[in-house]
Amino acid sequence: MADVESVLNHLDSQLEASLERLFGLLEIPSISTDPAYKNDVKRAAEWLVEDLKSIGFDASVRPTEGHPMVVAHHDGQGPHVLFYGHYDVQPVDPLELWNEDPFKPGIKEIGPDHRVITGRGTSDDKGQLMTFVEACRAYKAVHGKLPCKVTILFEGEEESGSPSLIPFLKAHADELKADFALVCDTSMWDRETPAICVGLRGLVGEEVTVKAANRDLHSGYYGGAAANPIRILAKVLAALHDENGGVTIPGFYEGVEETPTEILRSWEALGEDAESFLGPIGLSELAGERGRSALELVWARPTCEFNGISGGYTGEGFKTVIPAEAYAKVSFRLVHSQDPAKIREAFREFVRERIPADCSVEFSPHGGSPAIQLSYDSPIVTTAQAALTEEWGKPALAIAMGGSIPIVGDFQRLLGMESLLVGFGLADDAIHSPNEKYELTSFHKGQRSWARILAALANR
Amino acid sequence: MADVESVLNHLDSQLEASLERLFGLLEIPSISTDPAYKNDVKRAAEWLVEDLKSIGFDASVRPTEGHPMVVAHHDGQGPHVLFYGHYDVQPVDPLELWNEDPFKPGIKEIGPDHRVITGRGTSDDKGQLMTFVEACRAYKAVHGKLPCKVTILFEGEEESGSPSLIPFLKAHADELKADFALVCDTSMWDRETPAICVGLRGLVGEEVTVKAANRDLHSGYYGGAAANPIRILAKVLAALHDENGGVTIPGFYEGVEETPTEILRSWEALGEDAESFLGPIGLSELAGERGRSALELVWARPTCEFNGISGGYTGEGFKTVIPAEAYAKVSFRLVHSQDPAKIREAFREFVRERIPADCSVEFSPHGGSPAIQLSYDSPIVTTAQAALTEEWGKPALAIAMGGSIPIVGDFQRLLGMESLLVGFGLADDAIHSPNEKYELTSFHKGQRSWARILAALANR
Repeated sequence: MADVESVLNHLDSQLEASLERLFGLLEIPSISTDPAYKNDVKRAAEWLVEDLKSIGFDASVRPTEGHPMVVAHHDGQGPHVLFYGHYDVQPVDPLELWNEDPFKPGIKEIGPDHRVITGRGTSDDKGQLMTFVEACRAYKAVHGKLPCKVTILFEGEEESGSPSLIPFLKAHADELKADFALVCDTSMWDRETPAICVGLRGLVGEEVTVKAANRDLHSGYYGGAAANPIRILAKVLAALHDENGGVTIPGFYEGVEETPTEILRSWEALGEDAESFLGPIGLSELAGERGRSALELVWARPTCEFNGISGGYTGEGFKTVIPAEAYAKVSFRLVHSQDPAKIREAFREFVRERIPADCSVEFSPHGGSPAIQLSYDSPIVTTAQAALTEEWGKPALAIAMGGSIPIVGDFQRLLGMESLLVGFGLADDAIHSPNEKYELTSFHKGQRSWARILAALANR
Repeated sequence: MADVESVLNHLDSQLEASLERLFGLLEIPSISTDPAYKNDVKRAAEWLVEDLKSIGFDASVRPTEGHPMVVAHHDGQGPHVLFYGHYDVQPVDPLELWNEDPFKPGIKEIGPDHRVITGRGTSDDKGQLMTFVEACRAYKAVHGKLPCKVTILFEGEEESGSPSLIPFLKAHADELKADFALVCDTSMWDRETPAICVGLRGLVGEEVTVKAANRDLHSGYYGGAAANPIRILAKVLAALHDENGGVTIPGFYEGVEETPTEILRSWEALGEDAESFLGPIGLSELAGERGRSALELVWARPTCEFNGISGGYTGEGFKTVIPAEAYAKVSFRLVHSQDPAKIREAFREFVRERIPADCSVEFSPHGGSPAIQLSYDSPIVTTAQAALTEEWGKPALAIAMGGSIPIVGDFQRLLGMESLLVGFGLADDAIHSPNEKYELTSFHKGQRSWARILAALANR
């Protein structure tokens, strides 16, 4: 590993310079969702292309219907990896809540030996993607080559729904396909504990509207005789969970696997319990399937949640109305190999069976993506885990995430490629909020981590 | 009854003149809810006072904090009755939906031998109250006296929430107290079948808010672990009705009596079934307590209805949020001697028992009035029933109403007086809507009905 040590030393010596470069990128307000910043988004793409060219990448700005992609290629021995990140950022309003100018990045000491990089995009995702670029730069500086064949894809529309991504992946599948993807858009367990995300829950959304009478009714004239769609909807929703918090839809748990005991144990060792997990949000009792820990519930178990409900009179005061309809937005988080289409259909059937003959129900689908699950002992995972453990001096965790990162599913579906999710963000980075920050240790040791991971993948 | 026959003949001969008078009152746009018509409301009160004086009433406009009351007294033998009606009307917008000017009343032939009086207030309530005034006028014209001692109370704020009514009743209890009240603000069963309303359901409203986390949560991060207030609320609402449509709150049916079999039979004879009752609103199945007819359900049974529900994201599309709170507006229609305070407390207890320990619930009360129930064989009812039956040539029905008429409760509570509810409106009179009308037969035979009722009450 002598060749890695020299790269790591180089990274240490060049930290100041790497910060200057990062600041250069952070100063460009590449807010993708606001058309007023269209040109800034383009400038950020061009900045990245110039920087990648300076390291020897064959890099170019690639126009799309929306904001451009940055694609870059570099030859190398060993495996071929596709690195993904995004260079667009969230809007910054309300601006008055920022302690510093969001586009004048700087270093701030927020505690003893605790420094952070401040500004919009530091953690999401410019700081993260530059950890990888800096690792490549150092490799080139020290060895004149990279340990792997590297393709880079930087997106400029991640914060505005990625409208061009799927068409672009389809159109350039041959160019972008690699052995696997590296995605740097996730978090560590805490400031000192690195983590690899091997599971991402999938999502099925359904809006369900129950319709009863052909108009709103006066509850005095019709109450007690006419169907009330709120009552029907409440009955349906209430029937979706059993007394133990399990989901009652027939076949719902098809494809759900139990998490390996050793993984559950490693999660238990994190010391997260119901109190520590729920305390900050003002709760104390786990509301999901009984007998499972908080982390297992949000990382490895499927759910049925109600995200919205509405019907009848919802203003101030009272109106004795029996509404003509009521609706709810219901979503399911999926794990392992649960099939979104099957779940959707089973849910609809479950609802239909509970609608009185003279009422009707309508469904409107919202999203449908399967879960992503790398096996916990996949060689890519264990290799990266060892490299991270070496860098941080603490065992790197294989964790899961309750939410979804659509790009990972897209890579799998469109390019037949699994993703390794390694990131150095923290839960308190305030991404999407005022006063976004990125730990200076994350930026520094993140660079070193990628150097180690690339080396380890090459030597595997 | 010779003395009634001559009064009836007089009414027949004076129908044209009574219509002219009614038109005079209808032409005044006494819209109580709109301050722009304040003076018109006053004009209508003055019009009535002048008219009542012309019959020999001691009548006066009585100022209140809002619109004035009209109070009038006339001596007489026999029982002392308080007649109540209201001279204010609903707004008329959307004006473009009216076929005629709402304040240019007229007679319209809408079918063979089927004429109606058109205009705002014809049915609600100027046309109705004038049936009584005309009966008094005819009595005076023919006999020079009234068969009963009559006090009249005409309100000018019924369509805007009656803010002055209770203070006025309290301040003038001695002046207004009579043996019983006659209220003319209800409907007939159909165009040919008169009806007396002997039951009015009471009402208890509660807004219930379930609170879980201290902020909205991302369902990816917390879904499956954190309490979802929509789920809790749905479980609570779903538990309020059993499989047979009965309400499950302990003690809810305390004070509920079974309706006498002969009354149920008279309702059955009306030929109203689930299909005829629900068909016009697009339904076909009775949703209330099983084994009871549509009319029994809405007239004589208590209910629990959900009038509104809201929580989480209710806009277009989807947001994977677990909301911090969710609320529902729940109302109960009460019958017989159900106690509103007890029902409210029992409901709250029912809900509290179903809230997880780390969540909370808040209640906000809306209204609470007991049911009004005259006994079906009260002498006042049977006397009026016989008079109506004689006038219309069809048995007058003793019916109930699903909604409530607050004045009846106020008379009972504040003046210790029961009310006889007789009215000649029809379900299709479009009160509160464009193209309000009142059947010409209702106006004519309504006058004759009051003449007969007054005579019958005097002779009892």
